[in-house]
Amino acid sequence: MSETNRHWVLTDRPKGGNFNEVLDLREEAAPEPGEGEYRVRTIYLSLDPTNAVWMQYDTYLPAVPLNSTMRGLVLGVVDKSNHPKVKVGDIVSGMGRWADYLITNGEGMGKVPRLPGLPLLSYLGPLGMTGATAYFGLLDIGRPKEGETVVVSAAAGAVGSLVGQIAELKGCRAVGIAGSDEKCAWLTDELGFDAAINYKASGWRKALRAAVPNGIDIYFENVGGEITEAALDLLNLKGRIPFCGAISQYNATQPAPGPRNLSVLVSKRARMEGFLVLDYTPRMGELYTEMGPWVAEGRIKWRVDLDQGLENTLTSFAKLFNGGNRGKLAVQVSPEP
Amino acid sequence: MSETNRHWVLTDRPKGGNFNEVLDLREEAAPEPGEGEYRVRTIYLSLDPTNAVWMQYDTYLPAVPLNSTMRGLVLGVVDKSNHPKVKVGDIVSGMGRWADYLITNGEGMGKVPRLPGLPLLSYLGPLGMTGATAYFGLLDIGRPKEGETVVVSAAAGAVGSLVGQIAELKGCRAVGIAGSDEKCAWLTDELGFDAAINYKASGWRKALRAAVPNGIDIYFENVGGEITEAALDLLNLKGRIPFCGAISQYNATQPAPGPRNLSVLVSKRARMEGFLVLDYTPRMGELYTEMGPWVAEGRIKWRVDLDQGLENTLTSFAKLFNGGNRGKLAVQVSPEP
Repeated sequence: MSETNRHWVLTDRPKGGNFNEVLDLREEAAPEPGEGEYRVRTIYLSLDPTNAVWMQYDTYLPAVPLNSTMRGLVLGVVDKSNHPKVKVGDIVSGMGRWADYLITNGEGMGKVPRLPGLPLLSYLGPLGMTGATAYFGLLDIGRPKEGETVVVSAAAGAVGSLVGQIAELKGCRAVGIAGSDEKCAWLTDELGFDAAINYKASGWRKALRAAVPNGIDIYFENVGGEITEAALDLLNLKGRIPFCGAISQYNATQPAPGPRNLSVLVSKRARMEGFLVLDYTPRMGELYTEMGPWVAEGRIKWRVDLDQGLENTLTSFAKLFNGGNRGKLAVQVSPEP
Repeated sequence: MSETNRHWVLTDRPKGGNFNEVLDLREEAAPEPGEGEYRVRTIYLSLDPTNAVWMQYDTYLPAVPLNSTMRGLVLGVVDKSNHPKVKVGDIVSGMGRWADYLITNGEGMGKVPRLPGLPLLSYLGPLGMTGATAYFGLLDIGRPKEGETVVVSAAAGAVGSLVGQIAELKGCRAVGIAGSDEKCAWLTDELGFDAAINYKASGWRKALRAAVPNGIDIYFENVGGEITEAALDLLNLKGRIPFCGAISQYNATQPAPGPRNLSVLVSKRARMEGFLVLDYTPRMGELYTEMGPWVAEGRIKWRVDLDQGLENTLTSFAKLFNGGNRGKLAVQVSPEP
């Protein structure tokens, strides 16, 4: 008897965020692993802003082909294996699908190390791709020095909330930019940011200026648009801009113009540098070594905004773009073993 | 009897390139050096796009104060000295004024090394700030590797024409973007660029694409605007953009939007980095060591578009923004000794 595999099929390229119209939940018999392959039952499906880009066009990864199952990061358990090095019951994570099951030869998929004292969900958050994005983006691209000021946009998001905390642990002043007073209170009161600015409140630019009395040494870029312009205006000499993404533009029907004050980079001898977390896969050990204890000791706070059921993926996904989530967004597809 | 010092006074902030209306040529008695100072008679006044920025607002240097003499790079001869280390007849260059004479304590001014076989004008061109901008911008910020493709905008300008030639000497493919067929012919036929694209000709984007069959590894940014967008679209993985300036925007009355495709930096893990030649003053020795022989042996071709007479400075300066000059633009203020 075969299990049912529910899976979200991409039927068209989305425009302006109409994900409901281009993704269709279908059913099929669950696939069986061939020789050298294994099957993963999805426990958690990670929902990330970049998913919207994958639906639309080729970038660092080819666009998801039309009429195929949508791509996504997953954490799951091996439930059938014809692979010599992978056993039933192993917990793995990596690039998967918006589906109950996937078949893999192991490429793009790695065993989760299960450090003591850490719940499985942490591998979706601070010890997964989300954590790696914050950790390597800030440290490897931003290269913070003690006493510097780090500003992060989309600060209440999965990546942003970690960036600010890592900055604090490295002795920096962390300032977050987020979209509600409630989110800002969470950043300062619970996560330990030095300041947080609600960019939807009037006078936010002035408030940002006041929050960075020594200017901005690192602006961690998640959003694009006028927040970027405000940060550029406050950038210090030799400032650094780790360029993680531009969520304000992912669902734009027209490409939005870049910052009008980009030439601040010249006068400030500043650096804007893009990076992709996938490039850091070989260095995940560094993340586990430094971030693992921080997480286990509670020095890094994190939350997963977890919705239940693969069938609710689109409702959940919409939160990424309407400001509805705090922390890492994910869907629980099946129970933990 | 004192000499007359003609000098250009900035009377207002220019708007939209109305330099004629905000600069006024005046006369006064030539100044006398005080204790520890010396006087320089200007031989050559360098005219650079960044001068337009200095007139308008504070950047890496404060804006030139209103009702004071305009700032500019000069090369001149010491004609009076109360300075222990500087003799009458010494040739010096550095930050000066749009004037016949200047008084200095030596700060921001350096003796010209007079390498054998090199005319004085070369210290305004490939062995001066212009050469240093091209040399350090390309090598220090761009870090070219043999076989890579380097594209430079404003390629027939003082800096751009050197960037392409240095790229060629370093074993790269050099492609220039310039504003006329005549300039393009000069780049390929005389300077040895592999290809040159006239961005005013129809189909130039397609021509650019064809000229970089292996994509762009380094885009040396001088202009901004749609040329930047075209270059970003062709940027390779780990591409680098030494950001030298954005001449298309220096006289804009409204700040122009940045490139709409700036997030190419993310998908290509690319780096855009601003730099200022003034930061490289302590490293001019490197320039003399490597570029000096290239220039002396004729392996680097360069030209100074030299106009005569301080009174003609504004006519000359306008060429920077209407595409009228090739190579380094300068005004001869007085004869070489």
